Amino acid sequence: MKYCIGEKAKVSKTISETDIYLFAGVSGDFNPAHVNTVEAEQSIFGKRIAHGILVGSLISNVIGMKLPGPGTIYMEQDMKFLKPVYIGDTVTAEVEVAEVINVSKHIIKLKTTVVNQNGDQVIDGFAVVKAPQKEEG
Amino acid sequence: MKYCIGEKAKVSKTISETDIYLFAGVSGDFNPAHVNTVEAEQSIFGKRIAHGILVGSLISNVIGMKLPGPGTIYMEQDMKFLKPVYIGDTVTAEVEVAEVINVSKHIIKLKTTVVNQNGDQVIDGFAVVKAPQKEEG
Amino acid sequence: MKYCIGEKAKVSKTISETDIYLFAGVSGDFNPAHVNTVEAEQSIFGKRIAHGILVGSLISNVIGMKLPGPGTIYMEQDMKFLKPVYIGDTVTAEVEVAEVINVSKHIIKLKTTVVNQNGDQVIDGFAVVKAPQKEEG
Amino acid sequence: MKYCIGEKAKVSKTISETDIYLFAGVSGDFNPAHVNTVEAEQSIFGKRIAHGILVGSLISNVIGMKLPGPGTIYMEQDMKFLKPVYIGDTVTAEVEVAEVINVSKHIIKLKTTVVNQNGDQVIDGFAVVKAPQKEEG
Repeated sequence: MKYCIGEKAKVSKTISETDIYLFAGVSGDFNPAHVNTVEAEQSIFGKRIAHGILVGSLISNVIGMKLPGPGTIYMEQDMKFLKPVYIGDTVTAEVEVAEVINVSKHIIKLKTTVVNQNGDQVIDGFAVVKAPQKEEG
Repeated sequence: MKYCIGEKAKVSKTISETDIYLFAGVSGDFNPAHVNTVEAEQSIFGKRIAHGILVGSLISNVIGMKLPGPGTIYMEQDMKFLKPVYIGDTVTAEVEVAEVINVSKHIIKLKTTVVNQNGDQVIDGFAVVKAPQKEEG
Repeated sequence: MKYCIGEKAKVSKTISETDIYLFAGVSGDFNPAHVNTVEAEQSIFGKRIAHGILVGSLISNVIGMKLPGPGTIYMEQDMKFLKPVYIGDTVTAEVEVAEVINVSKHIIKLKTTVVNQNGDQVIDGFAVVKAPQKEEG
Repeated sequence: MKYCIGEKAKVSKTISETDIYLFAGVSGDFNPAHVNTVEAEQSIFGKRIAHGILVGSLISNVIGMKLPGPGTIYMEQDMKFLKPVYIGDTVTAEVEVAEVINVSKHIIKLKTTVVNQNGDQVIDGFAVVKAPQKEEG
């Protein structure tokens, strides 16, 4: 077996206002919750929050760079947004091999989670990927 | 009922190299499939492709800006990446009200799709959102 | 008449340091008033201010996206910069149909204003646009 | 007199797709004329064009950097958009001292124009600025 159940990798980043504004600029999602301090203060979150998909993009980072890494074909990503992420929060995205769906086609299911600096889980979910062929030791 | 099953909204954009590089910078996903022309040419895609989650971020645009729009709380997003999106492709993200999960809490399920300029579906999936309270007619 | 005198649309955004630096990068306007905290502190404004035309670009947003919206041809924009906009200010650009200049050519004059979070007007001015043909009700 | 009628300064830049996408990201102006090749091809312009105010921002560059330069207070900018600017066009913004409105307050009127690489004028207009105090020779 090339990928062992339970194998993990992760990456961390402090989410900056710049990240949010660049993501708004790329996606076109200028929802006031993300780019309007006045309206955000009146919302249930109390201040501007990061786009959920921006936070989730760190999962793409781990999958594309580390586990399984370059050559992986991303087939599916599911994300449940559990808590808001604010400017200045430091989040850690972790990917864990959960299940081998198809051994010959290298299709595996990954548990994908993001936690903040307080250990609160902000995203839960899973990914399905076609891993690149890996040489055995 | 505040949101009618079948109600739709969409947004379109041509995906530029700039979008891919900014998204790579924000997410840290520097997978060669996205930012390395030499390796991308040797891959099964033949040239650099957009990050799946970058393309999916247009769904966040429609949800946050149009349907249900500002005030929506994003609870879940599932995306199946069906086909690659290349630099210069023009994609349209569409959101359609599919199911009212909880009427009193305004929780609805949305069908979320992205198609390219040839009408090929590149992303399929769904979102679950808590819609803002909407005045009835 | 396709556009009614007094018809309005607007958009709001908190102006971030990122906006100013990206605008400086695109325009090449590295005036110390915008990108040099030391010199800005010695100026009459006391700290870095947003480029006037950056703030005015939100008018382009309203015209291009909402009123008259996609298909509009921008013919003229006049902006009087009345007050400085600082990093963190939340500004609202509003466009109002002021005059129909040429009915058959759909040329209209718009009053274009920007106010900050305190209700102070920061930009006054007008635009002339050729509106796209709109179906009558 | 500190600024002589007829005194000129200019700056040139090739407008890139990146400029347009960054400007769209900052302003939120995702009008399909700027970021959608499919719709832009069906428009009267035939392909994507730069935002008029993006092109005009080069005038801000000349005023803030050269004439009158750092310390200038921008009071008004009028721009008439005469022709479209396409990706790859090289434009030159020129500012010329046209009139001294108030000698003691250093308020001057500038003729502001932008031409493309073929010599076609794409923007005409004027600015009013409060120039910084300049030492006499």
